[in-house]
Amino acid sequence: MGKVSAVSPLAPDHFPQLPVIEGVRFATIAAGVRYQGRTDVMLAVLAPGSTVAGAFTKSATRAAPVLDCQAKIGGVSEDGAAILVNSGNANAFTGKNGVAAVEAITAAVAEVCGISQSRVFTSSTGVIGEPLPHERVTAVLPQLQSKLDPEGISDAAKAIMTTDTFPKGAREEIEIDGKAVSIAGIAKGSGMIAPDMATMLVYIFTDAIVSQSALQKMLSRHTETTFNCITVDSDTSTSDSLILAATGASGVDASESGAFSDALYRVMLNLAHQVVQDGEGATKFVEIAVTGAATDEDAKIHGMAIANSPLIKTAIAGQDPNWGRVVMAIGKSGAAADRDRLSIRFGDIEVAREGWRSPNYSEEAAAAHMKGQNIVIGVDLGIGEGKATVWTCDLTHGYIDINADYRS
Amino acid sequence: MGKVSAVSPLAPDHFPQLPVIEGVRFATIAAGVRYQGRTDVMLAVLAPGSTVAGAFTKSATRAAPVLDCQAKIGGVSEDGAAILVNSGNANAFTGKNGVAAVEAITAAVAEVCGISQSRVFTSSTGVIGEPLPHERVTAVLPQLQSKLDPEGISDAAKAIMTTDTFPKGAREEIEIDGKAVSIAGIAKGSGMIAPDMATMLVYIFTDAIVSQSALQKMLSRHTETTFNCITVDSDTSTSDSLILAATGASGVDASESGAFSDALYRVMLNLAHQVVQDGEGATKFVEIAVTGAATDEDAKIHGMAIANSPLIKTAIAGQDPNWGRVVMAIGKSGAAADRDRLSIRFGDIEVAREGWRSPNYSEEAAAAHMKGQNIVIGVDLGIGEGKATVWTCDLTHGYIDINADYRS
Repeated sequence: MGKVSAVSPLAPDHFPQLPVIEGVRFATIAAGVRYQGRTDVMLAVLAPGSTVAGAFTKSATRAAPVLDCQAKIGGVSEDGAAILVNSGNANAFTGKNGVAAVEAITAAVAEVCGISQSRVFTSSTGVIGEPLPHERVTAVLPQLQSKLDPEGISDAAKAIMTTDTFPKGAREEIEIDGKAVSIAGIAKGSGMIAPDMATMLVYIFTDAIVSQSALQKMLSRHTETTFNCITVDSDTSTSDSLILAATGASGVDASESGAFSDALYRVMLNLAHQVVQDGEGATKFVEIAVTGAATDEDAKIHGMAIANSPLIKTAIAGQDPNWGRVVMAIGKSGAAADRDRLSIRFGDIEVAREGWRSPNYSEEAAAAHMKGQNIVIGVDLGIGEGKATVWTCDLTHGYIDINADYRS
Repeated sequence: MGKVSAVSPLAPDHFPQLPVIEGVRFATIAAGVRYQGRTDVMLAVLAPGSTVAGAFTKSATRAAPVLDCQAKIGGVSEDGAAILVNSGNANAFTGKNGVAAVEAITAAVAEVCGISQSRVFTSSTGVIGEPLPHERVTAVLPQLQSKLDPEGISDAAKAIMTTDTFPKGAREEIEIDGKAVSIAGIAKGSGMIAPDMATMLVYIFTDAIVSQSALQKMLSRHTETTFNCITVDSDTSTSDSLILAATGASGVDASESGAFSDALYRVMLNLAHQVVQDGEGATKFVEIAVTGAATDEDAKIHGMAIANSPLIKTAIAGQDPNWGRVVMAIGKSGAAADRDRLSIRFGDIEVAREGWRSPNYSEEAAAAHMKGQNIVIGVDLGIGEGKATVWTCDLTHGYIDINADYRS
């Protein structure tokens, strides 16, 4: 997927100190699936009694491991569970060979970890259309199992990277009824980001007690306003997978907790933002806040039309407050709009009001906002109460450099 | 809209020698609407009895001249007609001021040319959101009128250019019942090209006799498979306008002629291809032929998902036969697909068959095809009879250069 890049200028200062989630252990290894000289397989093992929820790409050409996860995710079991991820090869568009690879890996993980195969979830990320050398993965499983460590989550965040320029982690710690509950999550993703369900690969763990149905409900709800509201390049992966596991080790039942749900939302939003901040070639982080639309759905359609417009993304790269292109994107989106009620702001600067250039328009002030690293585009449709916020990055020469490279 | 570029490497060798269409005269002038040192206003005047048909953008934020044309286009009149076009300013998102500018220009053209205002069609192309200095246009009308020339069409093609690197023209001459009929067309368009009706600005003239209703029917039908099947950057203009006029001067009635309809289609397809060949930053002309889809509509959705994918367009720029990204685009398109029936070819080289890499796959042969200037991606869904062909170009550093420039 192209050359290795320097760390994104939008990266957080450092990887967060993630809390240990009791009931989950991690191990990573360099299995040589495709990359050399780096870890590329990670194993997470969950204690018996853990619940697992998931969200996956809706792509019609989704990969074999995604289909396998989807078939298993709703199950309830007192058994433990395991998550096995490889980077370097997506095991997508690999026909029967791909299904066989998933079968071989999940059977081997089940045996090594002593759990049911129906509780082994796998993800693969990397090149599409090449057979996954699954024997390289199964060969290292005993060694991986012997290395399992409750403190291994930051190494896990590194092992799942592909074109990512930094590992992504987020944490929340809250109190419920006076008792501490922790959430820790990791993600990977940089290009081919326009999630139709979840982004690339995301794994979130908590020591709360949450029933499978409650866990799935929270996850699905927050996915819509976090991972499904980001886009780097409008291209949707065949492998997007988000898995959330609750070990229950804290002894605190959070199935009905609004505070827990809110904390989970913050972890998901944080990780989603980090994926955008590692957008291929990105130099600006862009928030698009749409209000006054006919419906929330319409607001999101307008927001995504703006976020995916190459003309707007290149204008942002060029630090040009080219709001005419925002008008264009709203016009093409297909959602309801009335040209003469439309208002637009860049940061706090109103650039257009009710269908024309703002009477207070200052090109200088708008241009000053565009020079920052965090760009906010506000759009008010003026026709209803619908609203949505989406996030994207700019489109730069860096994106072309990364993706016009011949696969190496 | 950015810096002036060298002529596109995909440009035709030369502008075609367009036939004189009896009953239509052209004039151009440098009115200084925005650009200096080049023509930027063109006037075409049609003889009495001409019929006029049109197709326009469906953008919800379409420009004032587009709305004015749409209100007038269905009319039938024995009066003459006129088309006035300026480049440099789109008169889009200009509120009441924009409507007033159209009113002023159409009234002035009607007076100078001695025709009804309801028969004056205008287009404006260029920057969005700035007031059109319409007095600069009306001031030059008497001079324009005095210069009207049946041989002026090639100058007209130049006056309507914005970021275009070459003027675009196409011709067809056919015989109907032993008598000659000619069609001549011009177009402009380079960026913000994902027509939802017609592309940017296109004007086509014929000396055939064609009733307004027949003319509109042919135009609408062929628009779907020509201008509505091209994309440069997935961004839809606020100003797309296509006007087709039949002067009837040949004395040949072509209202029911299949040969005429076919010739019109060829002119429209030729002009649509030239717009793609002048795509901002383009170095490759790409045809995407989709077959075996559930319906023709589905085939077009798949084709456009491929044509608009930044990952595919950058891979083409990098001469990389990255067919995994084609699988990705089909998966995200939303139209019906069965991963395990999908076949893909690059040129004549089958790269994937029925859900996996082709048994005859040769990376070398596929890579050789990608080195050419004309790339063909063939996709067979294997599930039905639906088909569509769409055209696009690659996504290069040139596109970023042109569009990340601050508006000058």
